[in-house]
Amino acid sequence: MLSDEFLPELRVRRQALQRLLQREGVDGLWVSSNVNLYYLSGRVFSGHIYLPAEGELLFFVRRPVGLGGDGVHYVRKPEEAPALMTAAGVAMPRVLMLESDSVPYSEYMRYEKLFGRPEIRNGSAVLREARAVKTPREIAMIRRSGERHAEVYRTIPSLYRPGMTDLGLSIEIERQSRLHGSLGIFRIAGQSMEIFAGSVLAGDNADAPSPYDFAMGGGGLDRSIPVGADGTVLCEGMSVMVDVGGNFTGYMTDMTRVFSVGRLPDEAYRAHRVALDMQHEMAAMARPGTPAADIYNLCREMAVAAGLGEYFMGHRQQAGFVGHGVGIEINEAPVLAPRSRDVLAEGMVFAFEPKFVIPGTGAVGIENTFAVTDGGVEKLTICEEEIVSLG
Amino acid sequence: MLSDEFLPELRVRRQALQRLLQREGVDGLWVSSNVNLYYLSGRVFSGHIYLPAEGELLFFVRRPVGLGGDGVHYVRKPEEAPALMTAAGVAMPRVLMLESDSVPYSEYMRYEKLFGRPEIRNGSAVLREARAVKTPREIAMIRRSGERHAEVYRTIPSLYRPGMTDLGLSIEIERQSRLHGSLGIFRIAGQSMEIFAGSVLAGDNADAPSPYDFAMGGGGLDRSIPVGADGTVLCEGMSVMVDVGGNFTGYMTDMTRVFSVGRLPDEAYRAHRVALDMQHEMAAMARPGTPAADIYNLCREMAVAAGLGEYFMGHRQQAGFVGHGVGIEINEAPVLAPRSRDVLAEGMVFAFEPKFVIPGTGAVGIENTFAVTDGGVEKLTICEEEIVSLG
Repeated sequence: MLSDEFLPELRVRRQALQRLLQREGVDGLWVSSNVNLYYLSGRVFSGHIYLPAEGELLFFVRRPVGLGGDGVHYVRKPEEAPALMTAAGVAMPRVLMLESDSVPYSEYMRYEKLFGRPEIRNGSAVLREARAVKTPREIAMIRRSGERHAEVYRTIPSLYRPGMTDLGLSIEIERQSRLHGSLGIFRIAGQSMEIFAGSVLAGDNADAPSPYDFAMGGGGLDRSIPVGADGTVLCEGMSVMVDVGGNFTGYMTDMTRVFSVGRLPDEAYRAHRVALDMQHEMAAMARPGTPAADIYNLCREMAVAAGLGEYFMGHRQQAGFVGHGVGIEINEAPVLAPRSRDVLAEGMVFAFEPKFVIPGTGAVGIENTFAVTDGGVEKLTICEEEIVSLG
Repeated sequence: MLSDEFLPELRVRRQALQRLLQREGVDGLWVSSNVNLYYLSGRVFSGHIYLPAEGELLFFVRRPVGLGGDGVHYVRKPEEAPALMTAAGVAMPRVLMLESDSVPYSEYMRYEKLFGRPEIRNGSAVLREARAVKTPREIAMIRRSGERHAEVYRTIPSLYRPGMTDLGLSIEIERQSRLHGSLGIFRIAGQSMEIFAGSVLAGDNADAPSPYDFAMGGGGLDRSIPVGADGTVLCEGMSVMVDVGGNFTGYMTDMTRVFSVGRLPDEAYRAHRVALDMQHEMAAMARPGTPAADIYNLCREMAVAAGLGEYFMGHRQQAGFVGHGVGIEINEAPVLAPRSRDVLAEGMVFAFEPKFVIPGTGAVGIENTFAVTDGGVEKLTICEEEIVSLG
């Protein structure tokens, strides 16, 4: 099941997570979500993984047929796992972590009974902490995603046709993404946020409040998925903000660029400049040890100082963050928000997205994905950052 | 928040669900998932709904700003709900249902404390039961989705180019779907199944086992999402099975058609004919009162009688069902499987998908979405059903 070339990588991930399990004083972690199965095996399968605080991983696979390798056991149901663990000489956990923030209640109650009712603790935070710091291999996958993401964005001016709607432009960008190798799927942690490929926001639709916790909303096409493009015809003087997800490798990049139909009001260019200045300041201050909240607070102060506080991260409804970790999912740690306790560490990867909504014009600003290096940050989504005029 | 034209529809849905709550002897249901918020309000929002066993719904909205209407209360967190309920003269529930099969454990524990620790029961089955029987309005939305879905499929022969891969064809079908109004998003109940827009399976990739519980698998492009097209170049003698989701209205249709590159072996046409015969037999037997398992068992018997048992619903890995309810999500009740206890009822909508995998050729068969009427079934996805030759 595990490709040989993945085994050294797996050892690094396993050991990092085991250090956290040992720190927390627990005996093991039972993994059931697709994203964490992928993280700990290099592929999505139907089944479970048991990670003891010391020793090797055990993979309990239900589907697909035909996988093999060290530690792989085929099972029809998770209740078969304990006997297989015992046969493999692995002790039953007395203190066990589950993915309590994502496992549905009914499933949790089933897992709780598997190992003779051990003490259960919430392992979601530990997984989030481990996954926040990417390995060199993960950063390489994100970098590769970023390169293709940028290639797609470079095609955008050529996709524009006068009279197009935001949706029409989005459809052509989605197609280019797929032609450039996008896997399509847009993974978001938690149940509350949903989106298809991403969002293209034109004019005042950028200010339409959404139920979702994205940086910008948009009314969407239907009340069943109220986010993103709403069918606005692209007109002279409108900004067009493109924030379509990049998932070319199983690891996501997040990247936003702004286009204009003709020329925008000066206020829009000024706000865009402030966003680029924020990115400049962030890149100057961010390094291992920087509190994520400090970055948010600096941006907020810069917005207010520029007289743009009421447009910062939305107008009718404002997002409470200016950046977020990305990886297998789009909303990982760290969170760049005023009360975040996250601190940057080498290997973290985050999207930084200072944006403004200018009423009557639309959204401006920037978003790039950065990796935290030993002494600063490295931008992984490299593409023109000025507002590009369409047509 | 609720559009006026939705209010009569809402009353029907509310009353149907309240009859189930009363049957189960519970005082109320607390709803937190996007799909069920949509079902009970006609829109997705961030927040919660309380449905008492008698009386009106209460909507506790966190986002978006700007909603209004009867029963709408803005809250920052669910803990504010009980006081608002008391102020509205709504009794605290002594027996409360939660969506236990989908609410994450941590969230469940939070809701459990909201109302002074009532007895909690699993409300997932009741919601599934209510949603399985569609209202006339819901069926109209599914019918509209089916019409557009069929329009997209009719374009497929014109999208084919010699030398194309399964992925290349999928990308053009995805674009046509969006141009015909697809909302893109593909909702699946549960955490274990994932897919982007749908699957296009060419040749032996149809037999590649997948971790997901779809009728057919496919290896996919990457181990992070191992399902569907894998980059196979479409070659003479291959079948190409198109099973791309239809979501044009918030309600989904499911529909599969088979294309060929040139001519397929006779065995493939024969198996396809058996699948069409199964559809004919299903349509003759299905009506309110028909056990869903009977439909599966009949199909299985027909497959065996035709000497095609080992290819039915897959070959290397076989799916254990021949159909499933569709609606807001792709995997609703009823389930057409050997041990299903579901019984067809007027208003149910299900996808029926008898399929075979012929080694060396690929997948053949059919899938359509049907509504159960008072005396039978009505097909909602109407489009050529024979194998259509490309190019």
